[in-house]
Amino acid sequence: MRVMGVDPGLTRCGLSIVEGGIGRKVTALDVDVVRTPPDLDLAQRLLQVADAAEHWMDTHEPGAVAIERVFAQHNVRTAMGTAQAGGVIALAAARRGIPVAFHTPSEVKAAVTGNGNADKAQVTAMVTRILGLRTAPKPADAADALALAICHCWRAPLLARMAEAEAKAAAARKRYTERLAEQRKAVRG
Amino acid sequence: MRVMGVDPGLTRCGLSIVEGGIGRKVTALDVDVVRTPPDLDLAQRLLQVADAAEHWMDTHEPGAVAIERVFAQHNVRTAMGTAQAGGVIALAAARRGIPVAFHTPSEVKAAVTGNGNADKAQVTAMVTRILGLRTAPKPADAADALALAICHCWRAPLLARMAEAEAKAAAARKRYTERLAEQRKAVRG
Repeated sequence: MRVMGVDPGLTRCGLSIVEGGIGRKVTALDVDVVRTPPDLDLAQRLLQVADAAEHWMDTHEPGAVAIERVFAQHNVRTAMGTAQAGGVIALAAARRGIPVAFHTPSEVKAAVTGNGNADKAQVTAMVTRILGLRTAPKPADAADALALAICHCWRAPLLARMAEAEAKAAAARKRYTERLAEQRKAVRG
Repeated sequence: MRVMGVDPGLTRCGLSIVEGGIGRKVTALDVDVVRTPPDLDLAQRLLQVADAAEHWMDTHEPGAVAIERVFAQHNVRTAMGTAQAGGVIALAAARRGIPVAFHTPSEVKAAVTGNGNADKAQVTAMVTRILGLRTAPKPADAADALALAICHCWRAPLLARMAEAEAKAAAARKRYTERLAEQRKAVRG
């Protein structure tokens, strides 16, 4: 599975492409950081981020897009810009019929380092080791985008199995409710 | 000036078209609320909101799009979804070369009621009166979208004059700095 990892942002937006193989084998195909000037109009910044991400989708044709789920940050304005950058990329994927998944920072850290509270240095070190890179990816946004894609490669089969189990449970619940309604009807009748 | 007002949201997104005339004369041309199911995939919800907003832009051809600037809300998840809905609409406008402006809720309330802390009922009452509507627009998201567009019709000329004044001041500052550098050079030489 080819996964596009996105560490969303307006000032710096990390993009990566990782190919997942058998077991936990993953290979980095591309990584970059898109930057937009802070003094530019918000709509124009979103346009530049969307254009770059769409170019990646059309060039690399990922089978899934994994985006970091944004939570409250110290700076509310930054958090909103980050959420909006992630939003326009999710939209671009949806328009192309590419499934989008959101992973929280702690899910990503836990996936690559085994520790949901790992710091940036640990994440970068593990990403470098997992992908067998000669040098550590820089800046942190590039490493984060790679970590997102790795996390998705490893979590996606698990999430798919969980969704399947949930769908089965829901179907069983529905059948049970229907049978119960029928039995009650039979008793009343 | 024809303005499209947007009260962004995923569950309910208010859209309006208001035509600004001479002075403070404003006329409502259209208003609606787009809804997307909460259990739908986030990317798909953004797609539905973007599709609806783009259809409005292509049908009504507004000269500007005014979107409510989202701040922190009680529910962080809701705030992020709201920011993302506004982001995809801003992107759609940018792609069409339509200028986008963001107004805060208090700027909008102050513009239509004269009070930045006005409640929803006051805003709806003033929007109904200003636009000369027979019945109050419902739900609140529809009234908010109309208020946004009215706010933009009234604030846009002021904002344009402020931007012009700022550009002039910046140019004057630049000329002064250049002259100063030349004079220093002359003294040294």
